Amino acid sequence: MGGELLGDAGLVITGLNGLVEAVPGELSFYGNPRYRRQYDATRASAVLVGREAEPREHVSLVRVANPHLAFAQISQLLHPRPTYEAGVRPGAHVHPEASVHPDATVMTGATVDKGARVGARAVLFPGAYVGEAAVVGEDSVLYPNVTVREHCLVGARVILHASCVVGADGFGFAFNPEGAQGPEHYKIPQAGIVRIEDDVEVGACTTIDRATLGETVIGRGTKIDNLVQIAHNVKVGPLSLLCAQAGVSGSSELGTGVVLAGQVGVVGHIRVGDMAKVGAQSGVAQDVEDGQVVSGTPAMPHREWLRTSAALGQLTELLKEVRTLRRRVEMLEKKEKGG
Amino acid sequence: MGGELLGDAGLVITGLNGLVEAVPGELSFYGNPRYRRQYDATRASAVLVGREAEPREHVSLVRVANPHLAFAQISQLLHPRPTYEAGVRPGAHVHPEASVHPDATVMTGATVDKGARVGARAVLFPGAYVGEAAVVGEDSVLYPNVTVREHCLVGARVILHASCVVGADGFGFAFNPEGAQGPEHYKIPQAGIVRIEDDVEVGACTTIDRATLGETVIGRGTKIDNLVQIAHNVKVGPLSLLCAQAGVSGSSELGTGVVLAGQVGVVGHIRVGDMAKVGAQSGVAQDVEDGQVVSGTPAMPHREWLRTSAALGQLTELLKEVRTLRRRVEMLEKKEKGG
Amino acid sequence: MGGELLGDAGLVITGLNGLVEAVPGELSFYGNPRYRRQYDATRASAVLVGREAEPREHVSLVRVANPHLAFAQISQLLHPRPTYEAGVRPGAHVHPEASVHPDATVMTGATVDKGARVGARAVLFPGAYVGEAAVVGEDSVLYPNVTVREHCLVGARVILHASCVVGADGFGFAFNPEGAQGPEHYKIPQAGIVRIEDDVEVGACTTIDRATLGETVIGRGTKIDNLVQIAHNVKVGPLSLLCAQAGVSGSSELGTGVVLAGQVGVVGHIRVGDMAKVGAQSGVAQDVEDGQVVSGTPAMPHREWLRTSAALGQLTELLKEVRTLRRRVEMLEKKEKGG
Repeated sequence: MGGELLGDAGLVITGLNGLVEAVPGELSFYGNPRYRRQYDATRASAVLVGREAEPREHVSLVRVANPHLAFAQISQLLHPRPTYEAGVRPGAHVHPEASVHPDATVMTGATVDKGARVGARAVLFPGAYVGEAAVVGEDSVLYPNVTVREHCLVGARVILHASCVVGADGFGFAFNPEGAQGPEHYKIPQAGIVRIEDDVEVGACTTIDRATLGETVIGRGTKIDNLVQIAHNVKVGPLSLLCAQAGVSGSSELGTGVVLAGQVGVVGHIRVGDMAKVGAQSGVAQDVEDGQVVSGTPAMPHREWLRTSAALGQLTELLKEVRTLRRRVEMLEKKEKGG
Repeated sequence: MGGELLGDAGLVITGLNGLVEAVPGELSFYGNPRYRRQYDATRASAVLVGREAEPREHVSLVRVANPHLAFAQISQLLHPRPTYEAGVRPGAHVHPEASVHPDATVMTGATVDKGARVGARAVLFPGAYVGEAAVVGEDSVLYPNVTVREHCLVGARVILHASCVVGADGFGFAFNPEGAQGPEHYKIPQAGIVRIEDDVEVGACTTIDRATLGETVIGRGTKIDNLVQIAHNVKVGPLSLLCAQAGVSGSSELGTGVVLAGQVGVVGHIRVGDMAKVGAQSGVAQDVEDGQVVSGTPAMPHREWLRTSAALGQLTELLKEVRTLRRRVEMLEKKEKGG
Repeated sequence: MGGELLGDAGLVITGLNGLVEAVPGELSFYGNPRYRRQYDATRASAVLVGREAEPREHVSLVRVANPHLAFAQISQLLHPRPTYEAGVRPGAHVHPEASVHPDATVMTGATVDKGARVGARAVLFPGAYVGEAAVVGEDSVLYPNVTVREHCLVGARVILHASCVVGADGFGFAFNPEGAQGPEHYKIPQAGIVRIEDDVEVGACTTIDRATLGETVIGRGTKIDNLVQIAHNVKVGPLSLLCAQAGVSGSSELGTGVVLAGQVGVVGHIRVGDMAKVGAQSGVAQDVEDGQVVSGTPAMPHREWLRTSAALGQLTELLKEVRTLRRRVEMLEKKEKGG
């Protein structure tokens, strides 16, 4: 890791853990001053720390550029991703016109439909479905009961968690007051696809709808948490983070490195700029500029929202205050008249 | 489409697209003045427009009564729904006492349980499950990994998107402080069903719970987006639209043509009237009258909510203002006394 | 039920129903004075009531300690849980190194992976997946398309509803500005598990992520509704109720008997105390003490939130009022100066 050791070079590390949970023998990390108290109290035998950290007694420190990242890298060494025997297992359903790389794994109960392609070292768990002419890139993993609908494109090193759905029809209807059976919501064909670029991760039970025409796109290296909704024709730029239960409405665009916290809603046809951040449960109703941090419903600059939230707590007080002021002003007015 | 052409009758249209995305050779539509700018700038060769639209140079126009609907209808001509070879495929699991119409398609890895019935031309994708004595009407589609639990009724021409769940147990418990093993949430049997009427569409990972007793009902022609929660004993009227991540609590009733925008929550045991509309992320805590448009948490008439939202933006200003006023009033009072 | 009958001992009850829905011949219950009107108007022939209820004409009453619970218990007698023929059915996929109790039922299309264990009388519906070395306790039910990932532990008498996901990777990344292919969100291995204790119920399409290290825990007897998100390393105490579409962020802790209403969000690394209650759609951003009832975003004591909500409705009025006051104060000041 390129770290500088302050402490016992002969120490044997038996495992990794958080600052709070670690027991003697374990290695932890401390990268965020918010966790200063936990750092001071940790029972870990060694801690990955920043370059400027001061030596401590009884705890070995390893100075690195990025303690969180170093911890993750060590953890990957200790917890390598499992490997699976290549091949199409008995009980898997691969259409004769599908193409599955010989180094891919298609587990029992997984389905690869007509014309679909599955790349080298890709892994399809039971219940995973790859629709007609869909493509799954190399080293990608489809956990159980994942659905990739027809014609959708999934890049390389993509992880699709259990029961996520890629390429369901977008929610598009034209109201027809005079349908054959009376008024109806006439279905607009959802004839586009979803394209998921390389190194994307999609959470469990997350849904990404296919475009009405053209593509819904999830950019390279973007990570999406569980139960997120991505509507038709949305474009998410690379390296964004979308936390659980967030939702993005049709045709909206998120830039590069955008962060949506949990349960955020983004209306349709707007743009959230590069590196913008949206606070939890916020409702974004109009464009957010590059780098802006917004919160609240409707979303406003985060600082403003903090002030407004604080002010809200004083609102009932304020109502009383104004009532009192009115009486005092009335009194003054009376006196002034009488005077 | 019964349209009136203004422009080049010999024009060959190569595809459909939105006003922004369209390239020369493509047909688009313009029905909402909100998109006037996009209409003026479109590169489409032809555009479906309203009856009153004025002719344009370089763009052929087709005047129709409802441009959005006409576009959808043309799109359906160009993108017909795929057809599937009828029959129960090898690797499908159909119980000997189930009844599957010979014109239905049951794909490999789909299951039809004891006593269930599947109608003509219905299509069950891999992983779709139709429980004991459940019914799926003709021309309905169950995408991969859909669950329809025992005894539930799904009408004709219904589309159930991937991983949606029809008929899971409602969330009902009676607290028992003196259970055999100590305090417990005693499960109230959820002995009712879900009935989905004709022409309904249910989004991916949407959950519709069975009734405690009786029926949870989704009315004819209603469309439900992804990740929506419909609790036990809810009745949704016909032709309603429920956008993604909305939730309706137990025993509530939505009328005809109701619109719930994304992430709306509706509490239990209330009624949202016919043609009512609820703005995104709103929390509806009491009855909404027919035709009302409400927003906010707790939901209020939409206009009032707009005013309140705007006022919220001035709240910190207001606090300062009131503080200043108080000082000025104090000053006046002092002078008045002193005077 | 140990009830005391007031009325016709020869009455034959033909079914159960709610106060509103019940028809003559049916039994209902009345335990909450909120439903007094429905009780007075019910057509039920008999009603379970509290110990203090007064006799009524034309309706037989049965006095019990807890009418809701008694109703649930009678309903369980009338609607016993279905039983399933034990055994591994043809078309089920049980790994040779897995262990399935002979009294368990593994339906066609269900999968039990290497080293997994399934207890007595457990039932796995089609599409259910039990990963490597995972454990499902006795009498538990996995409805269709449920995923239990590798090494996760599911207790006894647990109900996992359709398409819920236990043990997907937590959402954890360390930003690496200098990855091999450029900037990247480096995946932190999610090497822990999920442990679900006895008598838990998990709703359809609910997701419970495995811990980064250690365990995500759902305590004994806790009930979770549909579409709920439980992030990595969360600990939920026993006997809690988490309503639909609620979300709990990483490492947070809920105590015993906590209630989260629908669409609540809880940030990471906080504690919601024993018996605390959180109102619908609230955003909990800091610790909640034992027994507290909170609402709103950010969450505040419920009474305060009620006052604030009411005050919000007066906000536009207040703005006008303050403007008027300012003018009146200005007028007074002018006069004072002039005087």
